[in-house]
Amino acid sequence: MRSHAIISVMNAGKFITFEGPDGSGKTTVSKAVVKKLSEEGYSLIYTREPGGSEIAEQIRNVILDPQNTLMDARTEALLYAASRRQHLVEIVKPAMAQGITVISDRFIDSSLAYQGIARGIGIDPVYEINAFAIDDCMPDKTIYLDVSAEEGLKRIADRVFLDRMDKESVSFHQKVREGYMQILAKYPERIICVDAARDLDVVVEEACRLVREIIDGSPEKQ
Amino acid sequence: MRSHAIISVMNAGKFITFEGPDGSGKTTVSKAVVKKLSEEGYSLIYTREPGGSEIAEQIRNVILDPQNTLMDARTEALLYAASRRQHLVEIVKPAMAQGITVISDRFIDSSLAYQGIARGIGIDPVYEINAFAIDDCMPDKTIYLDVSAEEGLKRIADRVFLDRMDKESVSFHQKVREGYMQILAKYPERIICVDAARDLDVVVEEACRLVREIIDGSPEKQ
Repeated sequence: MRSHAIISVMNAGKFITFEGPDGSGKTTVSKAVVKKLSEEGYSLIYTREPGGSEIAEQIRNVILDPQNTLMDARTEALLYAASRRQHLVEIVKPAMAQGITVISDRFIDSSLAYQGIARGIGIDPVYEINAFAIDDCMPDKTIYLDVSAEEGLKRIADRVFLDRMDKESVSFHQKVREGYMQILAKYPERIICVDAARDLDVVVEEACRLVREIIDGSPEKQ
Repeated sequence: MRSHAIISVMNAGKFITFEGPDGSGKTTVSKAVVKKLSEEGYSLIYTREPGGSEIAEQIRNVILDPQNTLMDARTEALLYAASRRQHLVEIVKPAMAQGITVISDRFIDSSLAYQGIARGIGIDPVYEINAFAIDDCMPDKTIYLDVSAEEGLKRIADRVFLDRMDKESVSFHQKVREGYMQILAKYPERIICVDAARDLDVVVEEACRLVREIIDGSPEKQ
């Protein structure tokens, strides 16, 4: 009876996403935040699509295969939405239902920036298919790590494996950042912009503070 | 100069889809129609998703893998839309642009019936993601081959390989047919219903007549 009572009053975990252009440090920063806040006693997990879902992984393999040069932009957008849906159902929602805060490295805003703006489909149509995919499960808050396309690409230049998206041109990555700027303007309540051109330690410290405030419910700095 | 003049006045090919529950004879009938009308001098091709598109094929493999039992209904709908998009861009549109009539074995209505009704997502949301996928390229006409779920399943019972969709229950296949009935009511101008419980020769003959009339532009019997 006691365990049942505990479950029924337990609060759902928060859903926080990290976004930014390639090379903005999303993965490094969000993993560092999860490590640090876990040590402080917060209950949270790091994930990114496809993150542990076998089906989402299969979909991601199709998207990122460097051989798939004939892939149409709308096919790509639909595949990202499909992978997102499966990851949400298998990984994100079950964790949140257990009261665990989920830190996701990329989510819907990546599709709005990459497929909506950089691929030229438009934010609204890409939002529509993602609304179908996420079915009202928008992030509670999003931390956007801002760097220029040039700085971002410089940081990923020494990666051994570059996937189909990494291989895009500088102008593509510039459009990605412009896309994020439009999305920031569209969702000022949800998205917090962090200057990620600064030293990594400073960015991690600021991200930790923001995530603490989101979980604890006090107002985070815009 | 002459070849340029010919290309510029050439009419686009028609886009005709065959639909129906599993076991309705869509593949047999539509292939027979293409064979017969090709012999009569019509310029047309048979195709079905993923039909010759390597990327669409990879997507279809994810959808139909019998191991993917955890697949969410919305993921499935998005994957079908993605495969449809790629097949449309790589196969259907190029053929139509050359003046060839495309006969497609299944298209958007399959998703409306299977994912929209049988999986319970609803026709309208599934229509929305498919509208994104097909981007105004709706079929000129659709020939719906009608059989009961029981008769359809009896016909496919001796197939050696059953994919993830074939393995669904009788009640699932009954819902598919009910779904098609709703879609017929929604698109009475586009969809022509043919009784496919009759002898194959009779169904093929009727389908041939309808396709001739669609290509030649005279009114087909509803």
